[in-house]
Amino acid sequence: MSSTFTPADDLRVAHALADAAASHSMRLFRTPLDVISKADESPVTQADRAAEAAMREILGAERPADGIYGEEHGLERVDAERVWVLDPIDGTRSFITGSPLWGTLIGLLRDGRVELGMVDMPVLGERWIGQAHGGAQRNGQAVRVSGCAAVAEARIVTTSPDIFDAADWAAFDRLSRRCAMRRFGGDCYGYAQLAGGTIDLVVETGLQPYDYLGPTGLIEAAGGIVTDWQGQPLGLQSDGRVVAAATRELHRQALDLLAA
Amino acid sequence: MSSTFTPADDLRVAHALADAAASHSMRLFRTPLDVISKADESPVTQADRAAEAAMREILGAERPADGIYGEEHGLERVDAERVWVLDPIDGTRSFITGSPLWGTLIGLLRDGRVELGMVDMPVLGERWIGQAHGGAQRNGQAVRVSGCAAVAEARIVTTSPDIFDAADWAAFDRLSRRCAMRRFGGDCYGYAQLAGGTIDLVVETGLQPYDYLGPTGLIEAAGGIVTDWQGQPLGLQSDGRVVAAATRELHRQALDLLAA
Repeated sequence: MSSTFTPADDLRVAHALADAAASHSMRLFRTPLDVISKADESPVTQADRAAEAAMREILGAERPADGIYGEEHGLERVDAERVWVLDPIDGTRSFITGSPLWGTLIGLLRDGRVELGMVDMPVLGERWIGQAHGGAQRNGQAVRVSGCAAVAEARIVTTSPDIFDAADWAAFDRLSRRCAMRRFGGDCYGYAQLAGGTIDLVVETGLQPYDYLGPTGLIEAAGGIVTDWQGQPLGLQSDGRVVAAATRELHRQALDLLAA
Repeated sequence: MSSTFTPADDLRVAHALADAAASHSMRLFRTPLDVISKADESPVTQADRAAEAAMREILGAERPADGIYGEEHGLERVDAERVWVLDPIDGTRSFITGSPLWGTLIGLLRDGRVELGMVDMPVLGERWIGQAHGGAQRNGQAVRVSGCAAVAEARIVTTSPDIFDAADWAAFDRLSRRCAMRRFGGDCYGYAQLAGGTIDLVVETGLQPYDYLGPTGLIEAAGGIVTDWQGQPLGLQSDGRVVAAATRELHRQALDLLAA
């Protein structure tokens, strides 16, 4: 049944999901939140939970046979042909501290491949979308990765030194010090910048599928490449270490320097 | 002559300066720039230079007797009663990499004290203004610092570990690890977050008067406190190390931990 859906159908659902998430998150942005702790210590907000519940309600009505892999409310039917991977508020620390650099991440897997990726930035009013055969757009305008093919010319970003353990930090530090510019902060927006050609390399660790599959769909559609630190494609089972690069040459060099 | 100007007059000029800067910077945001190097190695753009020239033209017409301390085109009459301190694009690395977290900073000194401070964020559409006796506003809405009075409850932000030398990093690390949350990135937006009550502490080094005097005016008007790392008031002669805090208690604790 689900195989009768077209890419345009999927895109319509993704827009509806992002709209629903934004209606919950934006209402609470910059208001005092009852911050609670999860097992992994990351801050979670009421807005996050309400937004994902709203997204699941849409999928329940529109795509009852599809699977769901969400940050807040767990897994459903992840062996389905299509699986929606949802992070209603990626960058909850940004959200809590009043920074606009948090977003809603949506990935659509089909038979394990990312067919659609969305990075929606509600405060910025920027919706970044990539589809496997449709290219990538920011608010409807085509975007593309840079042509940067050398680490020495690359602009690299990661969220924080604090996401790395000591060994991974040593690897990241070795790579990023060879780059033309390194930047910290930005959460998921770094992936949008990469898709738009203003950042060349994003390297992170400790990520979950809902953190990287939406961005992966966007970046691949924009002409870039995203894998784990061993160069393997990302899926629901990856180890959470991500290298996203504008070109294959840059990606190869980054992997080599991370492994050196 | 200049003493006949009212705070409302000063505010009108500040708005005109920010509008002029934005008209140049926004036109070039996300377009390829001819990046050139300055002596201090920070990237500078055509937009930065054009924006400051436009601001100086306004001051030349409106306030010919006032002094100017600008990032791009140097100093004029800095012994005047009123001195305008200008940074047309603070966060040029953000600007270059397509991040929205760059801003125009405007400070107005009168007899060495900051009377007006503005942090204008053109991409975000947020203009943050503080005046010595007029409070602080974001887009006309009153804002105020948080009541956070303890490092253990504080959310701290700084632009990057890379702005610190080894000794200053050790001090920042000691302080920030005691905080409830530490964040990197954001450039001048961290000062706006502090004024708005969503960040409690900003600690940086290597800043110039045009980097900190606009934010200082904003934060003081929002009820916060900004000094150097020794607790001395900031002026045109400071050493570039800044501690901005929501409350006097938090500020005192931060100074103690930086000096420990």
